[in-house]
Amino acid sequence: MSKVFDYAEVGKHNTADSCWVVLYGKVYDVTDFIAEHPGGSKVILQLAGTDATEEYDPIHPPGILEESLKPEQHLGTVDPDTLPSTEKSPAEMGAAEDDGPVDLDSILNIDEIEEVATKNISKKAWAYYYSAGDDLTSKKLNNTVYRQILLRPRVFVDCTRCDTSTSFIGNKVKLPIYVSPAAMARLAHPDGEWGIAQACEQYGAMQVISQNASMTPEQIVADAKGGQVFGWQLYVQNERAKSEAMLARMKKLPAIKFICLTLDAPVPGKREDDERSKNVGANLPVRAAVQEDASVSKTSTDAKTPSPPKNMGVGQSLFWGTAADLTWKTTLPWLAQHTDLPIVLKGIQTHEDAYLASLHAPQVKAIILSNHGGRALDTAPPAVHTLLEIRKYCPEVFDRIEVWVDGGIKRGTDVVKALCLGAKGVGIGRAALFGLGAGGKEGVARVLEILKAETETCMRLLGVERVDQLGLHHINTRAVERDVYDGPAALERPSLTSRLMAKL
Amino acid sequence: MSKVFDYAEVGKHNTADSCWVVLYGKVYDVTDFIAEHPGGSKVILQLAGTDATEEYDPIHPPGILEESLKPEQHLGTVDPDTLPSTEKSPAEMGAAEDDGPVDLDSILNIDEIEEVATKNISKKAWAYYYSAGDDLTSKKLNNTVYRQILLRPRVFVDCTRCDTSTSFIGNKVKLPIYVSPAAMARLAHPDGEWGIAQACEQYGAMQVISQNASMTPEQIVADAKGGQVFGWQLYVQNERAKSEAMLARMKKLPAIKFICLTLDAPVPGKREDDERSKNVGANLPVRAAVQEDASVSKTSTDAKTPSPPKNMGVGQSLFWGTAADLTWKTTLPWLAQHTDLPIVLKGIQTHEDAYLASLHAPQVKAIILSNHGGRALDTAPPAVHTLLEIRKYCPEVFDRIEVWVDGGIKRGTDVVKALCLGAKGVGIGRAALFGLGAGGKEGVARVLEILKAETETCMRLLGVERVDQLGLHHINTRAVERDVYDGPAALERPSLTSRLMAKL
Amino acid sequence: MSKVFDYAEVGKHNTADSCWVVLYGKVYDVTDFIAEHPGGSKVILQLAGTDATEEYDPIHPPGILEESLKPEQHLGTVDPDTLPSTEKSPAEMGAAEDDGPVDLDSILNIDEIEEVATKNISKKAWAYYYSAGDDLTSKKLNNTVYRQILLRPRVFVDCTRCDTSTSFIGNKVKLPIYVSPAAMARLAHPDGEWGIAQACEQYGAMQVISQNASMTPEQIVADAKGGQVFGWQLYVQNERAKSEAMLARMKKLPAIKFICLTLDAPVPGKREDDERSKNVGANLPVRAAVQEDASVSKTSTDAKTPSPPKNMGVGQSLFWGTAADLTWKTTLPWLAQHTDLPIVLKGIQTHEDAYLASLHAPQVKAIILSNHGGRALDTAPPAVHTLLEIRKYCPEVFDRIEVWVDGGIKRGTDVVKALCLGAKGVGIGRAALFGLGAGGKEGVARVLEILKAETETCMRLLGVERVDQLGLHHINTRAVERDVYDGPAALERPSLTSRLMAKL
Amino acid sequence: MSKVFDYAEVGKHNTADSCWVVLYGKVYDVTDFIAEHPGGSKVILQLAGTDATEEYDPIHPPGILEESLKPEQHLGTVDPDTLPSTEKSPAEMGAAEDDGPVDLDSILNIDEIEEVATKNISKKAWAYYYSAGDDLTSKKLNNTVYRQILLRPRVFVDCTRCDTSTSFIGNKVKLPIYVSPAAMARLAHPDGEWGIAQACEQYGAMQVISQNASMTPEQIVADAKGGQVFGWQLYVQNERAKSEAMLARMKKLPAIKFICLTLDAPVPGKREDDERSKNVGANLPVRAAVQEDASVSKTSTDAKTPSPPKNMGVGQSLFWGTAADLTWKTTLPWLAQHTDLPIVLKGIQTHEDAYLASLHAPQVKAIILSNHGGRALDTAPPAVHTLLEIRKYCPEVFDRIEVWVDGGIKRGTDVVKALCLGAKGVGIGRAALFGLGAGGKEGVARVLEILKAETETCMRLLGVERVDQLGLHHINTRAVERDVYDGPAALERPSLTSRLMAKL
Repeated sequence: MSKVFDYAEVGKHNTADSCWVVLYGKVYDVTDFIAEHPGGSKVILQLAGTDATEEYDPIHPPGILEESLKPEQHLGTVDPDTLPSTEKSPAEMGAAEDDGPVDLDSILNIDEIEEVATKNISKKAWAYYYSAGDDLTSKKLNNTVYRQILLRPRVFVDCTRCDTSTSFIGNKVKLPIYVSPAAMARLAHPDGEWGIAQACEQYGAMQVISQNASMTPEQIVADAKGGQVFGWQLYVQNERAKSEAMLARMKKLPAIKFICLTLDAPVPGKREDDERSKNVGANLPVRAAVQEDASVSKTSTDAKTPSPPKNMGVGQSLFWGTAADLTWKTTLPWLAQHTDLPIVLKGIQTHEDAYLASLHAPQVKAIILSNHGGRALDTAPPAVHTLLEIRKYCPEVFDRIEVWVDGGIKRGTDVVKALCLGAKGVGIGRAALFGLGAGGKEGVARVLEILKAETETCMRLLGVERVDQLGLHHINTRAVERDVYDGPAALERPSLTSRLMAKL
Repeated sequence: MSKVFDYAEVGKHNTADSCWVVLYGKVYDVTDFIAEHPGGSKVILQLAGTDATEEYDPIHPPGILEESLKPEQHLGTVDPDTLPSTEKSPAEMGAAEDDGPVDLDSILNIDEIEEVATKNISKKAWAYYYSAGDDLTSKKLNNTVYRQILLRPRVFVDCTRCDTSTSFIGNKVKLPIYVSPAAMARLAHPDGEWGIAQACEQYGAMQVISQNASMTPEQIVADAKGGQVFGWQLYVQNERAKSEAMLARMKKLPAIKFICLTLDAPVPGKREDDERSKNVGANLPVRAAVQEDASVSKTSTDAKTPSPPKNMGVGQSLFWGTAADLTWKTTLPWLAQHTDLPIVLKGIQTHEDAYLASLHAPQVKAIILSNHGGRALDTAPPAVHTLLEIRKYCPEVFDRIEVWVDGGIKRGTDVVKALCLGAKGVGIGRAALFGLGAGGKEGVARVLEILKAETETCMRLLGVERVDQLGLHHINTRAVERDVYDGPAALERPSLTSRLMAKL
Repeated sequence: MSKVFDYAEVGKHNTADSCWVVLYGKVYDVTDFIAEHPGGSKVILQLAGTDATEEYDPIHPPGILEESLKPEQHLGTVDPDTLPSTEKSPAEMGAAEDDGPVDLDSILNIDEIEEVATKNISKKAWAYYYSAGDDLTSKKLNNTVYRQILLRPRVFVDCTRCDTSTSFIGNKVKLPIYVSPAAMARLAHPDGEWGIAQACEQYGAMQVISQNASMTPEQIVADAKGGQVFGWQLYVQNERAKSEAMLARMKKLPAIKFICLTLDAPVPGKREDDERSKNVGANLPVRAAVQEDASVSKTSTDAKTPSPPKNMGVGQSLFWGTAADLTWKTTLPWLAQHTDLPIVLKGIQTHEDAYLASLHAPQVKAIILSNHGGRALDTAPPAVHTLLEIRKYCPEVFDRIEVWVDGGIKRGTDVVKALCLGAKGVGIGRAALFGLGAGGKEGVARVLEILKAETETCMRLLGVERVDQLGLHHINTRAVERDVYDGPAALERPSLTSRLMAKL
Repeated sequence: MSKVFDYAEVGKHNTADSCWVVLYGKVYDVTDFIAEHPGGSKVILQLAGTDATEEYDPIHPPGILEESLKPEQHLGTVDPDTLPSTEKSPAEMGAAEDDGPVDLDSILNIDEIEEVATKNISKKAWAYYYSAGDDLTSKKLNNTVYRQILLRPRVFVDCTRCDTSTSFIGNKVKLPIYVSPAAMARLAHPDGEWGIAQACEQYGAMQVISQNASMTPEQIVADAKGGQVFGWQLYVQNERAKSEAMLARMKKLPAIKFICLTLDAPVPGKREDDERSKNVGANLPVRAAVQEDASVSKTSTDAKTPSPPKNMGVGQSLFWGTAADLTWKTTLPWLAQHTDLPIVLKGIQTHEDAYLASLHAPQVKAIILSNHGGRALDTAPPAVHTLLEIRKYCPEVFDRIEVWVDGGIKRGTDVVKALCLGAKGVGIGRAALFGLGAGGKEGVARVLEILKAETETCMRLLGVERVDQLGLHHINTRAVERDVYDGPAALERPSLTSRLMAKL
């Protein structure tokens, strides 16, 4: 029979020499585990001798605890009567509970979803989701660039039918909208990435699973219906063996249809809102679920990798261990050795790289034009710029591979505009996470419901029935075109007048 | 003699099994009518057993009650002493009454008219009038685009005379400004569309009557003077018989000079302010007056039409039953069978459609460039863009048919600029409704007085006596031109440099 | 000996039948004058039976009273002890007096001058000076257009010397800055236009006297020093005899070197701030000094002229009687008959009119590019646009006549930019009036001191010693050029593609 | 033995006839020195009879006191017990002390550095650092112009290594960022320019010492490590002998590698914030350290120079005595006679002057494109404009001399963009001073740490390892290009249509 401890007794074991924690009512001796903890020893010691459930839960996948600890480290249970009562601040209680649950139907657009979520979720989660590079210039551009494009509605066209279905590299979906690989969904809601999958199933939308998801891929796809389409995002690790193990693991999940290799963040961007939030509450041991795979994490003393810097935000923590040495020449062949799945390259930001990617078909089947939600390099171009660049310099890319885009999608009109410019589909990241924060899986479903309805209204008012009918003649992009890259030659116009003028 | 009921007695009949209401002091048994009510049963049941006059009055045309109910359904009158005293909130009393009536002469411009009306009218009416699609981008563009155009005043020209008279498809008018077909005028003021007609008569302005007017066309034109010009707006119904009946009805009204077929809203736009207002007060049974024509509404179970969605705003309700399957090929011939009146096509937003319309002269005599006041598709172009597009790609349209515009007219200078670009006239929608809200028919007259005076001052300062003398040389549109559609070819400039550049 | 009245006795004569007023301590019977009053009878009756000095003084030139009334209408004096004590509101006392006089040296720029004046002067005066047409678009453009032009400082140039002197149509001045003809200076300060003349003398600046000045031209130039340069502004009156009399009067004033014929306001613009201020205090009998010339005003029943409209602002009152029928063909020859002075045409706003004016040299010696301080037609172009238009379409104008500009000058850099573009000089209007409001003649002098110092600093930092060295190579106007009129042809590019595209 | 005085005794000597002051606890009789004081007699008399240490210290270099006064003028010491207790206002105490020292690591960017410094430093120091010309247009442009440039990140590039080292005219440095010559650092913190040198040493950054530094060059470079690179800024004095003496002095300091001749401010700009601050506290005797060189300052009655104007701000005081008569022809040869050091010309703002400078290689080895931080001529172009001008008209300049830029650098991305456009390095002025204000030398070090880290992140995300690999293909400057000077010819397009159009 399990031994029962007083919480006061647990409190005495609060040092590196004897470190106990309470998790889900059970008492664990984690003294031997401190050095092995992927998130570092410091965070464990901060919680030593306490009930760490609230800190532990949202950032560890269910079941990982049992995998990581030996049976004898489970000492028993805590006497619930001895636990301190968990008090919420009046503000917290008032805001979240007194108002009662939000009526999701009363939320009319994506901005309102964000508003509701911002009230619901923790400051730390908000900071992680909201933050972007430096001065948020690219984040703001991502959205405003769509507003600069005007639509050209055609009239006297029968618009009784409207069909938003399409396909992504051969996989049929009901929406040209997919959920981008966004990390740490359980920070927003316990439904986490599984909840996103449930909502996607309801609307026939594709989901790309983040390598830094807060649930394991197996958990996320567990309840997938037949025909539901997933991709899996790969951040190549400095320890290639870790990545190879992950690729092997994906082979066992037939719902995963492609590998999405993220290229736009070989080093983390500077997200100041996120860095600031490190001071909010304890410095949580943020570790993505997938990296906890026991067989790998136990041997993770990587000689090449220095110890992590002090005071990282969530974003910086997740980057720890990510490889910065990927190249066209070496990485794609290595990938070919370890997976047969098609490759989707995420983070293309110039027509030059789009063109290079197209030369790697058929291994590369699609590219995602993305500035990482404005989270990597500030003042990087929005995807619309890159779409226009490709169209200007190398439109043949659209014939060779699929082009997807993400960043700044807030309205159905944004979706339609991207498709008019040649995108096969658009990804939403923050919108899905804020949907989760606003109402769990139902909140994500509401996000998809809103965007689907807006997309249909837009298509109908343009006089278009199917997404493949959308084209350049449905939009006016002049306000954007004049800002699109025009080649370095444009700056090099040596003039004979300079000598004359110098005499002025 | 009519029976007299205590109000308490009426209150007992508040279910679907026995449903009484008080209207204008009379007691009706509407139990049998619930299922037939065009606005749905739910709204009646919400008011069952109560005095529903306040909710009923502004959205039903006078006389429709007698048409719709049988004599035996009129049970008697209510004893006025038993009615609850109607209390207004102190805020309402203070705002509307203590200030006394507004001195219309002290209102100097259209923005101030809107301010005054916003205080006077109900939140629901305001939301319906004010609302526009999504983020109101097109609504804002409609107005700001005129501010971007500069005027070019010529001097040393005799400007003692100024004549604003012109004609619309052969009908003489005193102003190049007409009132657009805007729905539900009685939400703003009991004078309703009849009041607009009175004001138009005073200033010699044309009025286009909305199919969704809150008074019948017969009532609206009842007091029209000889020579007063009206058009009638048609939203083709799924049940074509309804529309055919309406067209037949128009034949009997000689003041109606043309049919204005609205094309820019085959499905309703997303007007969030309006949708939100559904929660303000009861969900009112919004039905346009004209659709209540007894002979048709009694047979309105349209098999093709699903039941209306929950929680519609006023705008969505009005769209219910509107056909989405109009086409150049089928609709114009059908119209020719049912009316000899000239057709004006409203909602053209591209030069392509303007050109196509011009090919249908002489049946089509004019087009209205309109994005539906920004209420249909957000980021659709303002009429000024479409004017410039036509001028650039197919100026011959101006020779074949008249081109009218609406959207965003706030100043006489706006009127003049549209005329300089080739418009024959400009429509005002919200301005007229807010005028009504500010002061009934006198408020609408003040709107026309202001715009006429501003238009004259502008013409004089440009050195122009008659509207047909206004031309392109009176305006500088460069700030707008650079944003006008430039053809899809502008985006397709494949470059040989792409391969070279990819090596960078 | 003059009779002495109790103020209570005066108060009894407060009707049209017996109308007395107190002015400067004297009692007048103005019963017979009511009908003759150029400002209308209503304003006199409002003040009947009261001490009207405060209302009368700032808008009537000194001495006009004696000219207008017969000796027997002067009844005597009022007993000062019977006058009510003039109380100021605490707000007025606090603002204007407790702070003590403003230290003009502590005012560093023109915006601060306006701030100080706004506190000092009456609401009515502020409204008249501040107001501009419609939405103040042109007024704002006037200033911002200078901020859009960048300067191009040259270095390694000896800038120890700097000379701002120049000439206007042959008359030497020390500044390229002149005071524009602005009406009603005594509304701001008793120094009035005479005070402006004093300040101009101090800085060697030219002054153009408004026809609507609140002092007579004779009073304004009374203390002019030898070489001080004035112009006189003419608004041609419907009664040409009035204007001819004024031109004859100017012949006797040798300090007046030219006639400035104002063309940009044949009818008044719509200045809403000014119209609103009509309700502030009594509706003052605004009449410009010069029009009170006794020999003319006594016969002023102009059959062609309808009675003035109700509730005019100051601006509208001043326009009353101004001719709207001037033309190139008739007005210049008429002027030639009545004056030998050179003509300066004020209010040119297009290159076409600038070109036409240049054809009338040598009678016309200069033009002033002006949109009347944004007070006439809103969205009329700023003078910088017209300068660029002339330069683009007909630069020969600069060789034939002088080009002056006004509107929006706030900084020495603005002055320099206008000169770089080819202007011979720049006029300041509101700046001078607000200077007067801030500190009488010393306030105007401070305005000129600031602008002169800023102009010199700018010239030095550009590496320029004399104003005639300023040229196009010292400025970068690209941000403005792209908005300048490009000819109507730019909008007329009929395209063969329209038919093809319509098929889309 | 030194005599000990009561503070009350000192207080009696507070006139021009007997003037004592206390400095650092010692009592001096400065009666004879009043007339000689370079800052004027007035400021000394204001402090006569008091402890002037607090006013004296931040603006005089250590040791200058002993140089300037004779031994007999040192009368003794003050009895500390008789000194008044120095009280701070509660606000000052609260703001600066109660919060405790700022944690520099928690400051994440340059804007936050400025915020912290603004709280720490005196109003006068803030005004001097913050102020810029007129309306701060150029100051704002300096920063926003970098935000208008977009970056073009390349992916799939190994970015494990990143090297920010480069060289300035042959001198190796670890950063392409240097500290610009900014005056009066001790106003911000006692560490002054020496503190900046310490921080630069830590990060391998170059420092250009201001002629108006608040410490002597000898003091500043005193603790420089081998290889640390300095330049010295020269404002040529009207008394050339003073400047020649300074150049001779520089020869003895081998750490000084070049002379930076400032050309962009031959006369002071109009910095209103700074002028206003003259009224804050006493009018301090601002004198730059270097000008106090005893051998020169004792003979400083310059006949050509009038006495300084009343009420100057810090900026104007510093300019006093600066020569305005420099020219290409005379100044460079004169410099060649007095120094063998390479010349760097600071303040080039046009391609014409850049081209002229390049013709003076090899004496001139570099130019600094600078509008003096927006402090000289308002609406002068930002350095980015001049870079683009040179590239357009005379790119050969980049081959002949080095081009450095300053103004508006706030982010590592700004640094990288300037380098992409061809700049060899970028200077920071206010950032370094505000760093000093935020935390002395550690604050400056934090500024360099932030900018270095941001620069590295940017280079990595662009896929670039060394600064010499940055090029035009890494940026998109279209939003800026359209505003860059296009030559005066662009405005001169005489058109034959003018005559035709005039007939309109």
